[in-house]
Amino acid sequence: MAIVGASDDPTRIGGRPLRYLRDSGFAGTVYPVNPNRDSVQGLAAFKSVHDLPEPVDCAIIAVPAKIARAAVEDCAAVGIKSAIVFSSGFAEVGGQGADWQDEIVEISKRSGMRILGPNCLGIFNFDAAFFATFSSTLDAGITAPGPLAIITQSGAYGSHLYAVARGMGIGVHAVITTGNECDVDVAECIAWAAETDEVRVIAAYSEGVKNGPRLMQSLALARAKGKPVIFMKVGRSAEGAAAAASHTASLAGSDAIYDAVFRQYGVHRADTTETMLDAAYACTAGIFPNDDRIGLVSISGGVGVQMADYASGQGLNVAPMPAEAQARLIEKLPFASALNPVDITAQAFNDMSLVGTNFTVMLEDGGYEVVVAFFTVVASSPYIIEDMLRELKAVRSQFPDRLIILSMVGPDEPVARYRDEGFLTFEDPCRAIAAVAALTKFGKSFARAGNGGSFVSLSAMSKDAETETLSEWESRQMLATAGVPMVDARFAVNAAQAEQAAAAFEGSLAMKISGNGIAHKSEIGGVLLDVAGPEMASAAFHRLLKQARQALPEAKPDGVIVSPMVAGGIETILGVQVDPVFGPAIMFGLGGIFVEVLKDVSFRVAPFDRDEAMTMIFETKGARILEGVRGRPAADIDALADALVALSNFAAENASHIESVDLNPFVVLEKGQGAMALDCLLVRRTEH
Amino acid sequence: MAIVGASDDPTRIGGRPLRYLRDSGFAGTVYPVNPNRDSVQGLAAFKSVHDLPEPVDCAIIAVPAKIARAAVEDCAAVGIKSAIVFSSGFAEVGGQGADWQDEIVEISKRSGMRILGPNCLGIFNFDAAFFATFSSTLDAGITAPGPLAIITQSGAYGSHLYAVARGMGIGVHAVITTGNECDVDVAECIAWAAETDEVRVIAAYSEGVKNGPRLMQSLALARAKGKPVIFMKVGRSAEGAAAAASHTASLAGSDAIYDAVFRQYGVHRADTTETMLDAAYACTAGIFPNDDRIGLVSISGGVGVQMADYASGQGLNVAPMPAEAQARLIEKLPFASALNPVDITAQAFNDMSLVGTNFTVMLEDGGYEVVVAFFTVVASSPYIIEDMLRELKAVRSQFPDRLIILSMVGPDEPVARYRDEGFLTFEDPCRAIAAVAALTKFGKSFARAGNGGSFVSLSAMSKDAETETLSEWESRQMLATAGVPMVDARFAVNAAQAEQAAAAFEGSLAMKISGNGIAHKSEIGGVLLDVAGPEMASAAFHRLLKQARQALPEAKPDGVIVSPMVAGGIETILGVQVDPVFGPAIMFGLGGIFVEVLKDVSFRVAPFDRDEAMTMIFETKGARILEGVRGRPAADIDALADALVALSNFAAENASHIESVDLNPFVVLEKGQGAMALDCLLVRRTEH
Repeated sequence: MAIVGASDDPTRIGGRPLRYLRDSGFAGTVYPVNPNRDSVQGLAAFKSVHDLPEPVDCAIIAVPAKIARAAVEDCAAVGIKSAIVFSSGFAEVGGQGADWQDEIVEISKRSGMRILGPNCLGIFNFDAAFFATFSSTLDAGITAPGPLAIITQSGAYGSHLYAVARGMGIGVHAVITTGNECDVDVAECIAWAAETDEVRVIAAYSEGVKNGPRLMQSLALARAKGKPVIFMKVGRSAEGAAAAASHTASLAGSDAIYDAVFRQYGVHRADTTETMLDAAYACTAGIFPNDDRIGLVSISGGVGVQMADYASGQGLNVAPMPAEAQARLIEKLPFASALNPVDITAQAFNDMSLVGTNFTVMLEDGGYEVVVAFFTVVASSPYIIEDMLRELKAVRSQFPDRLIILSMVGPDEPVARYRDEGFLTFEDPCRAIAAVAALTKFGKSFARAGNGGSFVSLSAMSKDAETETLSEWESRQMLATAGVPMVDARFAVNAAQAEQAAAAFEGSLAMKISGNGIAHKSEIGGVLLDVAGPEMASAAFHRLLKQARQALPEAKPDGVIVSPMVAGGIETILGVQVDPVFGPAIMFGLGGIFVEVLKDVSFRVAPFDRDEAMTMIFETKGARILEGVRGRPAADIDALADALVALSNFAAENASHIESVDLNPFVVLEKGQGAMALDCLLVRRTEH
Repeated sequence: MAIVGASDDPTRIGGRPLRYLRDSGFAGTVYPVNPNRDSVQGLAAFKSVHDLPEPVDCAIIAVPAKIARAAVEDCAAVGIKSAIVFSSGFAEVGGQGADWQDEIVEISKRSGMRILGPNCLGIFNFDAAFFATFSSTLDAGITAPGPLAIITQSGAYGSHLYAVARGMGIGVHAVITTGNECDVDVAECIAWAAETDEVRVIAAYSEGVKNGPRLMQSLALARAKGKPVIFMKVGRSAEGAAAAASHTASLAGSDAIYDAVFRQYGVHRADTTETMLDAAYACTAGIFPNDDRIGLVSISGGVGVQMADYASGQGLNVAPMPAEAQARLIEKLPFASALNPVDITAQAFNDMSLVGTNFTVMLEDGGYEVVVAFFTVVASSPYIIEDMLRELKAVRSQFPDRLIILSMVGPDEPVARYRDEGFLTFEDPCRAIAAVAALTKFGKSFARAGNGGSFVSLSAMSKDAETETLSEWESRQMLATAGVPMVDARFAVNAAQAEQAAAAFEGSLAMKISGNGIAHKSEIGGVLLDVAGPEMASAAFHRLLKQARQALPEAKPDGVIVSPMVAGGIETILGVQVDPVFGPAIMFGLGGIFVEVLKDVSFRVAPFDRDEAMTMIFETKGARILEGVRGRPAADIDALADALVALSNFAAENASHIESVDLNPFVVLEKGQGAMALDCLLVRRTEH
């Protein structure tokens, strides 16, 4: 490889990578390129990449932005396959910098040379001893390789994550920082990590991705490979403030769509370095329970309660031990509290075999896939550690597929002895429990892998498009054809037809004006409810047309929709909004205050299946209403889920032709009686 | 002092305290008491406390429960002032143990000798070098004293907290474990800590307190002294499951009342050891901002966004710098992003004086009371630390009343240098921010200290009481007299009176049966709405009486209440429930799904003032409805707050005579038009 802008000073940006590569014993040849020097850090230097004695695979560009373009051009000219551009002063500063970045993108496209950066901190790969980076984090020493891939847009944060991971004893395979992402992005690196055998856990960070479908594809690949992805996407609060203009969008802003994507692809979203790396550390054990049950062990009743509180707050199931298991435990440890949390009390340490017995009973008879045990300072006591380790090793060899996490406080050395035997250790039992919740989420997601592998390409979507509000009748025809259930209706273009239509239905009627460009029918008097049968329908027809023409002289009403009034049911709202990053997303929420005041909505990117629809429904607090509250019967949640799936398929197939869809209200009737939209509005997108 | 059951083995329960007291250089004299030995750990032993050569202040009881009672009796007999009872096997095991505990309580009461425990781990006091404990945590060494008092019911958890605090470098004044609390309890120890000059921060843990008013009194005292209390109360989830039977109680269970008390007295409730000790550590700086604004500094734009997201999630205000401050900053650091978070970028390290300038501008022109700065590994770099410390020290001496927290990763030694200069350091910036949120909560609470100093004594309340549902008329007379606003009403004992009453009101009427023991009027046909004026009132009177007699033959309806129908307004629910620990608590929530489905309610212990009532109202999600949504006018929140205060005073004054009050619905009209209960139900408590 070549380092363009190599410096003789091993603490400078152009000097550090050479030092790191030599210190780490990188097996490849490294050629310093510097037109002003004959040698760099004792190696012969070359004036230009054109002078190199052999073809190289990769070049680091560590020169100022204004000459970096020429350096990139030179590298492409001599057939170098990839360039890592440290230089800043490109798109991140705007203006001329943005133009310069466009130029190197052009070089990359023309030549096929891949580019990481610009404005990045490069790559460190511990398995390959490859340190193409100027991160000063490595001054503190280079650690042994491990299973974690750290992929971050921000160089400073990538270095920080590595430094904290190192402090926690988590082995890292590689750190990749993508900077301005003029070519290689976080999504592509996740796919690479998913395909790389040494990587077993992926931690990613982004301030915003440009290509949503590519990210989803990478996440689906990682899931299919059984590799957990932990993702920090920042800008939650700022995104919230910059809420988009349309009704559905104003409920959420696009951060909600990131959230939806992460849920959909089983990604654990982290908000802090601590939760990110705690989860990553727990994932290194490679055990992902597809079961919410957690076994808790304590030597203090009160801490057991604290752990139970916290676990249930994390959505885990602190399920009691089966009665026989409790009986067996009490037979052996009569002083213990056997329910779960199991309080073995300090008495268990008088005969250390009882600690082993406790775990055996919990794993064998209790059947827990994960047990978190609070041993505080006791487990590292010199009086206890040898016996305890012996017992725990025996348990571990008997149950190699179960996860035992020890919460202990103590000096590094005794704690390391437990880690060396394959136990995860955490100081704080609650941090251990939060990590278990993440593992369980991954376990459930992996069990569903295979779903969610279809992506909507956004490449065909023009940013320049006109939108047009379709008439309700046209909207409903399109949606009904796609399998979205609609209230029964007939279309009338004159008063006689309105009467005939009304006669076809029993009871009173809902009549609505229909016409292109009529978005808010109620506000212009375009809706008449409880019209009392055919005898009133003719007058209603005339009134609707008259009111529409008065209120919206430019609109062209094409007729009137006649439907039966629907009594009862629970009002929900279904919607489609097209996210600029991820494409069409489906929204669900209950009507009234749930959507309007509580913003209690959930999103999923289209298309998705019935399981996903169910998850989406039950993510809202309002879903309890559908299950039946205050003595009311349960609603037809199956029909609702089917409608969401149908809407998602429609949105995915028509991604480039729709701007938004609103089904409001969408009424869910009693279980077995179906569900249907009473009103719909489709805004079409026409590219030009 | 004396140690009854002193052991020659310094690793045993009876041996450890003697070893610790001698190792620590405790200034007092310690007399071992052991009838079986002449000497204990080289000291002359005494057969009994009766043989001691001089009066002692305190005795440790480290003998089995069955002989501990006699030991306690002996201590009381020779006039020892206090006993620390390590022995277990008392109330916590029930049966005979509970009787034994009653016996030592009796001794304590009779003699005035105070007792800590039984079943406790004793006390460590670092300032007094007093270690009356058998906790093995001290085997790892005794640390220098500091400002934190740790007060826990659980001995094991107290030791754990101390061990973790030690690892975090937090200095501790004392650890007190209260065990079974037969005499001294957590509440009394909090009051002691509030009065002790060396203590500046209090961390407490309890599984449940017996005397709520005493706890509230201690919390009020700590607040008045400006000492922050961080409290972990476990049993949240279990308490939830054991929800009480009455309607209001079933919404919450008594854990909600603990939560209310903590909010009311400005206590920071912690769920984990980490959040508890992070807050405690931050409190040691002694700066409690009464202002939500936080200044954020980063050397990575992305981490700045992460910090801003997290801070706003914690309820802090990431307020932008004033425009002039931004201009001044950009003038000095043209490469920085000056808004807040301020991204000084790695460039600031090229001229370290710019780091100082940045802080000066943020504190002086920006006016932030707290700044959290993310410096990751950089601040501990040997190339940087000297210059950085020089700059930061200058800033600190210029602004001694502001809080600067550094987020840094590095070896202990360089981090300690920043701590020694008075900076708080956290590895994770988000943990620092969470701690700032706690400090700010304390700052606001201290600013309000002086309120909430009145307590309802529960001592007069008999556990044996009968309850009686008062008639609505009697209920409303009592509540109205207390200043709780009620819808206008007249009482009619015959049809003619009903007609007269109806004539007094305009429009249609609500008529309701009234009578002792009639709790659910609607269900027995005891409510008639929209009665169309005086002409219908007579018939309605007869119908109500007939229906009540049929449905509830044993009830004694005493008449009919006639009120005008109230149109509009927002329905809320106000209630009183008497908590067995804390006494009368007031509940507030919005009607409909808010209370019934979302359990969106808040509680406060009575009595409280208007500020507290406002806080209580805005704690609910539903409060947004009161402010006016979807174009509706704002409601009369002032009138609602006044009603809550009046209800709280009524409940406090009548604590021992009421079981529950329900005002449902309590209608809040448009701003300026008041609020009123449309229905009320008071269940009286009669002791016998």
